Amino acid sequence: MKTLMAMGGALNRKKPLVLREFVRRAGGTEARIAILPQASALDDTWQYYEDLFKELGAAEATSLRFRQRNEADSPERLAILRKASGIFIAGGNQMRLAALLGGTMFESELHQAYQRGVIIGGTSAGAAVLSQVMIAYGKNGSTPREGICQFLPGFGFSKKIIFDQHFRQRDRIGRLIYAVTASPGVLGVGVDEDTAAILVDDDEITVAGSGSVMILDGSQIAETDVAEIEKKAPIAVSGLNLHVLTDGCTYRLVTRQASIPSKVLLSE
Amino acid sequence: MKTLMAMGGALNRKKPLVLREFVRRAGGTEARIAILPQASALDDTWQYYEDLFKELGAAEATSLRFRQRNEADSPERLAILRKASGIFIAGGNQMRLAALLGGTMFESELHQAYQRGVIIGGTSAGAAVLSQVMIAYGKNGSTPREGICQFLPGFGFSKKIIFDQHFRQRDRIGRLIYAVTASPGVLGVGVDEDTAAILVDDDEITVAGSGSVMILDGSQIAETDVAEIEKKAPIAVSGLNLHVLTDGCTYRLVTRQASIPSKVLLSE
Repeated sequence: MKTLMAMGGALNRKKPLVLREFVRRAGGTEARIAILPQASALDDTWQYYEDLFKELGAAEATSLRFRQRNEADSPERLAILRKASGIFIAGGNQMRLAALLGGTMFESELHQAYQRGVIIGGTSAGAAVLSQVMIAYGKNGSTPREGICQFLPGFGFSKKIIFDQHFRQRDRIGRLIYAVTASPGVLGVGVDEDTAAILVDDDEITVAGSGSVMILDGSQIAETDVAEIEKKAPIAVSGLNLHVLTDGCTYRLVTRQASIPSKVLLSE
Repeated sequence: MKTLMAMGGALNRKKPLVLREFVRRAGGTEARIAILPQASALDDTWQYYEDLFKELGAAEATSLRFRQRNEADSPERLAILRKASGIFIAGGNQMRLAALLGGTMFESELHQAYQRGVIIGGTSAGAAVLSQVMIAYGKNGSTPREGICQFLPGFGFSKKIIFDQHFRQRDRIGRLIYAVTASPGVLGVGVDEDTAAILVDDDEITVAGSGSVMILDGSQIAETDVAEIEKKAPIAVSGLNLHVLTDGCTYRLVTRQASIPSKVLLSE
């Protein structure tokens, strides 16, 4: 079973619903978690997550600390990836991850781990980089406009999805509408803070956490002018499908159907 | 022909695309415009619009100034409504309009004017109040949540649409998703600033202005927990249809289809 966990950033530490679920899926008390802190500009990000994963009961939590591309492929680091049961990519700037690791043996080991069933989780920038076509940066809010965001290749664990994060908190629906309109074969998945979209076998998404996940499906787009208008002009698009999903809801890419569990109290 | 013009607020005065279109549809140089400034807390709103409509070539622009409910039904005021070719409702607080005019003869005259073919335009609060089920106030941004906004009866020129305004600028998609999810028979129409949704015969919407209009169609909603969750909890909903339309685009309520004009240059 292949599992990706795209987390929306700003994960609650006091009520760590999302990271507890990550540790559980990585093996719980047996979990051996490899941490990639490189997206972050802070010096203590690695320590923060090592401590947190140990608090959550993981057997091991080991950071892979390096800042230069030529440091990536050391045998010790690759060995840590090979024995990990979960890989966690911290937040910051997703371009740092892509520029640092794109084309390395290290990146190749990440993909092999994913194929073996090692859960790959990322928060914020670490979620963005899971996509094949990654939103590298862009403007928040406002109307969807031509060129509102920049795309770059990410790690490409899923070729079917563009993940965006801090989604409603930073009002990013404009750029996700633009992304899906320009590339309707790819599903837009916008993940709120303290929330995760958990993708199993590149098909079923389950939502976990305190916020919501917005799914933008462009497969039924009827008309758009996105390829015709000037840069920065507002785009027009018709026929997008939209789902807003919360903790416990699921969505299947194959059927393009969501399932929302009933929350009716039995006492009612 | 019955015409409503829901404007998103912050209308550009230097390039008055939206109000010029309103004056044109009200009769151009023959237009006799009655202005309702009551939603505004400012003392000079009536003057602002009288001047502006005259600048735009209207033959007459007359404000109906009063603040108390018992002043509404004076014969002089009702006579101005009866001879108007266009009625314009200024912005401010939509509850002021509903509380001031609901159930008066004045309100009844507005409806008779609409039925006669007098264009009814409103900006900001004046757009919100055009709906039967009006968004009275609410929170901007963030995830759609149970109770994120308060509904009250508006003037009800259209029973088929909930208009929201300052739409992308104030990130109001959360509350419009909530509104449409709670009331899927009603179309959500979110109008950006300096933009208008022009509704003809309660069926065809045409977009005018510099921003966009977001149409949220809940008629195909498959599942939701909106009636089951606690107040303030994030809602889940699947199967919303979404259209983002710009100047010149149209949408028909009967067919639920949008039409986006091609902007390809002939020289290409």
